[in-house]
Amino acid sequence: MVQDNRFRVRYRLKADSAAEAEKRATGIALEQTVEIPGDIVPEGYISNEIVGQVEDVAAAGPDTYKATISYSPDSAGEEVVQLINVIFGNSSIQQNIRVIDFEPGPEIRKRFSGPRFGIDGVRARTGRVRGGLISPVIKPQGSNVSQLADIARRCVLGGADIIKDDHGLANQRMAPFRERVTAVSEAVGEANAKCGGSACYFVNVTGHSGYPIDEAFQAKEAGAGGVLLMPGLVGFGVVYALSRDKSFDLPIMTHPSFTGPFVLTPETGVDHGLMYGVLQRLAGSDISVFPNVGGRFGFSVEECQSIAKACRDPEGVGKAMMPSPGGGMSVERAGDMVSMYGEDVVYLLGGSLLRAGDKIGEAVSAMRDAVDQLSAT
Amino acid sequence: MVQDNRFRVRYRLKADSAAEAEKRATGIALEQTVEIPGDIVPEGYISNEIVGQVEDVAAAGPDTYKATISYSPDSAGEEVVQLINVIFGNSSIQQNIRVIDFEPGPEIRKRFSGPRFGIDGVRARTGRVRGGLISPVIKPQGSNVSQLADIARRCVLGGADIIKDDHGLANQRMAPFRERVTAVSEAVGEANAKCGGSACYFVNVTGHSGYPIDEAFQAKEAGAGGVLLMPGLVGFGVVYALSRDKSFDLPIMTHPSFTGPFVLTPETGVDHGLMYGVLQRLAGSDISVFPNVGGRFGFSVEECQSIAKACRDPEGVGKAMMPSPGGGMSVERAGDMVSMYGEDVVYLLGGSLLRAGDKIGEAVSAMRDAVDQLSAT
Repeated sequence: MVQDNRFRVRYRLKADSAAEAEKRATGIALEQTVEIPGDIVPEGYISNEIVGQVEDVAAAGPDTYKATISYSPDSAGEEVVQLINVIFGNSSIQQNIRVIDFEPGPEIRKRFSGPRFGIDGVRARTGRVRGGLISPVIKPQGSNVSQLADIARRCVLGGADIIKDDHGLANQRMAPFRERVTAVSEAVGEANAKCGGSACYFVNVTGHSGYPIDEAFQAKEAGAGGVLLMPGLVGFGVVYALSRDKSFDLPIMTHPSFTGPFVLTPETGVDHGLMYGVLQRLAGSDISVFPNVGGRFGFSVEECQSIAKACRDPEGVGKAMMPSPGGGMSVERAGDMVSMYGEDVVYLLGGSLLRAGDKIGEAVSAMRDAVDQLSAT
Repeated sequence: MVQDNRFRVRYRLKADSAAEAEKRATGIALEQTVEIPGDIVPEGYISNEIVGQVEDVAAAGPDTYKATISYSPDSAGEEVVQLINVIFGNSSIQQNIRVIDFEPGPEIRKRFSGPRFGIDGVRARTGRVRGGLISPVIKPQGSNVSQLADIARRCVLGGADIIKDDHGLANQRMAPFRERVTAVSEAVGEANAKCGGSACYFVNVTGHSGYPIDEAFQAKEAGAGGVLLMPGLVGFGVVYALSRDKSFDLPIMTHPSFTGPFVLTPETGVDHGLMYGVLQRLAGSDISVFPNVGGRFGFSVEECQSIAKACRDPEGVGKAMMPSPGGGMSVERAGDMVSMYGEDVVYLLGGSLLRAGDKIGEAVSAMRDAVDQLSAT
């Protein structure tokens, strides 16, 4: 193990030769820090500390190399936005470079404390001591406030742990933000009281006023038990700020909207586990939503497992977080899912749940039973 | 022309047959709005208005189709974040779907006014009535505040129109945000006074406090003439909020950091002109930075031209904005650049400018002369 304060990023890149690969790696190290040609980098602090240092370049297949570059925590400061900017900001625009690993090092671990709640904290808030959590999604967009509240109420009575807003619920005229949050929070609270539950309502916060953080606090005041944020659209900085704000103190679920191109092409972007595990956790998310295998999106079993692993990696930054596979869950598939994801997981129950209509509570209850039976064995 | 209030998105997708293409298009229309199976979409308002409507699916090559889908402005509300969420949020995670065109329609045009300044406003602020604008970048990261201020001063005296922060300057200990902004603003102001110039200093705002908008106002108070924002990292919502805030009233330049994977693979993501033209302008950016042809990034002439076209398209949303190609500009290439981009353009002068050392002012001046001579002919 290297004993210094730097953080390390591993890239997979294409090159015609080892010499070309070295040159590309050096290019990344400059691009991600000083962004000036190597021969005019000022000596001293900038050259010794700030410029990325290529530590290793090794062949990894035909025309393929893996390069490890170390960076100074001084480049990132205390900001997750700037840290990601250093990891892959401009180099994301070059062909055939993919981020495949990130090692924070001691200083970044100190500065970035990760999730406020993590797995244990989410369990404490929802009262689900063991077994997978169940999170029905209230939708569709276009429903009015009382329709959404009614679905939420039925789902809580059915045994849901988390009621999640559809990520398409923002501040639309059929269900304005404040009205939606107030009505659904009340419905969830009443249903909790009735059944002795502790279900939490996670409000989708898009920042319609331009201030997502203010909007998150509005949600809290209206009774929300958590927030849903889309880092691809609102930025990782919002996740980071809210997770560190003691007066906010609600768990955060992050959603993958508008991040697909980062993972879909193996030659560019960022590995699945990094995008939906490492970066979410680094920013301070407690629950990371991603498209489950077998649903409408083409993620493989291995890709989904790499995400779950990164979310819960004991070596990761701060507390372990909950992976939350969306889609592909049903009573019939519950056995497969539990054996794939284990206990520390939030199962999203999406659009197909609505097929149950007025019996949506019973559908949630059936899922609850299926997961509990499997966890008990 | 269709006469209704809906906005339209055109997607290019892969499919084995026309029937499969229709099915995929219907899938996108559902995914981007209600996110529930088509057979359980509630009748009435949701079915008639909210669900995306597939208007056209046409063959466009081997296994390739183009689909036009219309959406309700009610889905987007008044938010750019939610509008982008509808355009491509979840479908961005599916293979072989690319956004290739966007037609706002009358209602979105009314709600989204686009850039506050646009080309004419940026010219008015910088005093550059005609010809291309020149924007040296102050860097490298790791420099102290007085070093950055000194570079800025020299560049203003050399005839720069815009002094742009390197996008890697955030809130680091060697040049903390407030100190940097204050010192560089003063240097730019003094140099303007000395040479009778109106150069504007564009401050990189990353939102280290979690509140990029507050930070933008801090920059304004410290004397900034504009802000630089990275929508890929801080979100388009910040651009939108600041562009509409009358009390802010400074031009906005946007930077492409952490957006590369959206454009690099032709089968996924978003076309170049949409990412670096249409979406930036829709959000309210006045100047869009993108990697120029011939620099370190592999954008083609056609891709760069499509970006410039979208920035200045008379049919676009709101005022026309300035394209700002980064890299690849030199006195020798000025002729090619002017014939490629015309007059309404901001040329970024990046790392290679620093090669001039103490003579950086003279280097800016030489570029100024080269561009002016070409514009005068």
